[in-house]
Amino acid sequence: MHPTAIRAAIRSGAWRGPTAHLAPGYVQANLVVLPADEAAAFQLFCERNPQACPLLAVLPPGDPHVPRSLAADADVRFDIPRYRVYHEGQFVAEVEDLSDLWRDDLIAFLLGCSFGFDGALLAAGLPVRHVEQGRNVPMFRTTRPCVPAGPFRGNLVVTYRPMPATLVAQAAAISARYPLLHGAPIQIGDPESLGIADLKQPDWGEPVVALPGDVPMFWACGVTPQAVALQSRIPLMITHAPGHMLVADVPVSALAAPHPLPLVQL
Amino acid sequence: MHPTAIRAAIRSGAWRGPTAHLAPGYVQANLVVLPADEAAAFQLFCERNPQACPLLAVLPPGDPHVPRSLAADADVRFDIPRYRVYHEGQFVAEVEDLSDLWRDDLIAFLLGCSFGFDGALLAAGLPVRHVEQGRNVPMFRTTRPCVPAGPFRGNLVVTYRPMPATLVAQAAAISARYPLLHGAPIQIGDPESLGIADLKQPDWGEPVVALPGDVPMFWACGVTPQAVALQSRIPLMITHAPGHMLVADVPVSALAAPHPLPLVQL
Repeated sequence: MHPTAIRAAIRSGAWRGPTAHLAPGYVQANLVVLPADEAAAFQLFCERNPQACPLLAVLPPGDPHVPRSLAADADVRFDIPRYRVYHEGQFVAEVEDLSDLWRDDLIAFLLGCSFGFDGALLAAGLPVRHVEQGRNVPMFRTTRPCVPAGPFRGNLVVTYRPMPATLVAQAAAISARYPLLHGAPIQIGDPESLGIADLKQPDWGEPVVALPGDVPMFWACGVTPQAVALQSRIPLMITHAPGHMLVADVPVSALAAPHPLPLVQL
Repeated sequence: MHPTAIRAAIRSGAWRGPTAHLAPGYVQANLVVLPADEAAAFQLFCERNPQACPLLAVLPPGDPHVPRSLAADADVRFDIPRYRVYHEGQFVAEVEDLSDLWRDDLIAFLLGCSFGFDGALLAAGLPVRHVEQGRNVPMFRTTRPCVPAGPFRGNLVVTYRPMPATLVAQAAAISARYPLLHGAPIQIGDPESLGIADLKQPDWGEPVVALPGDVPMFWACGVTPQAVALQSRIPLMITHAPGHMLVADVPVSALAAPHPLPLVQL
């Protein structure tokens, strides 16, 4: 299905499920909506931590319309399957659209999501265990602090992908080409150095089964800014529900950093 | 001066100095030359650590000719101002060309260099203290281990740039767009977390003076693969002399990861 059709199915209410496997090869975006009072510091936080929080777009105050170059006729109020609403850092509701909640002072942030490079890994013939096993990607809190900005401070969240040792290099090289989809892995092979004690107990998502010979790989995760915003107990934050993203019209390949050697073996 | 003219001045012997400030706006490359026996594991090391070791090109065994898309008519034996030769991990000689040392089993690696994004930072109006102060960039060994490959194992080396606190976000966001020039900073604001005790005593390069209000920023450094190769005490390694790089014909802007919003304020 083309992203336009997926967003139409979501807007009509025909689809309320996760988007991970819906549009392979297309960019998907995390949504964070904040009142203007908190938005400037949040934007600074994202810019200071670009691997965790790659900014695809920051919309003007009160404007719910996604830039056309990202997704045609898309509206952050309606085109995501499910949203979560937080007051003072507490989850208060899951909703299916933002028509009742939208305000003139709200600012929407769209952030890159690693679902995109899962597609790039698969396209290169690399295994992505959570996709093979039909699960959401496992995510972990780490002990590595982000660079703070205003009230926003807290630790990095990472996604975990086990990868056969012989393919670790290729997975690292491919992901590094996509800085807007979290870029290069931030750690390979040593979960304890990130303060992760048990790979079977993720803080978000679902556990994934590593096969014999797999090496753990960790990438900065787009849940980081949400986790940090919750910790800072700001009055209002609205996000997509985990795994329920905005599907953009941009092919993942369009975000690859160019390479001077088009045929380089990476 | 255009990179072609710079390389001609180097080949003729007219220029043997550092290249840092010679061709602002153009990509410069680190050189590592290894015998074929060690090259496969070294390539794997680079691919597993793409922020420290971004591969611009790996030449075929015995071939000293740089791919044309990187630099026209360039030859890694002659077009770098100075080279260093290491046996068993020990420095043995500095030479001005490789005509006497080249062999059919040597493989040349060209790796991205942060000189490129210094230019991008300056072009955006951000201060780069070591450029202002006319010094080589300070580099530090860290306690953060790289992902090993075969005999190649060791810790990450970083470059250090002090940046005014108000511009840290912009510097992080700009550099993140250049994964082939080391990409996003790997740490901001906390040298001790990398095991760096004294910012005034770099392990390579020259000390830089931070101004009041500056925040320390650290990027993965292309000296990492050299430092790791030396530690592994391989029989022969040839590199460029520090600060004396291959100047490529590729403008830095040509390596920026594309962004779906051409006018985004980053």
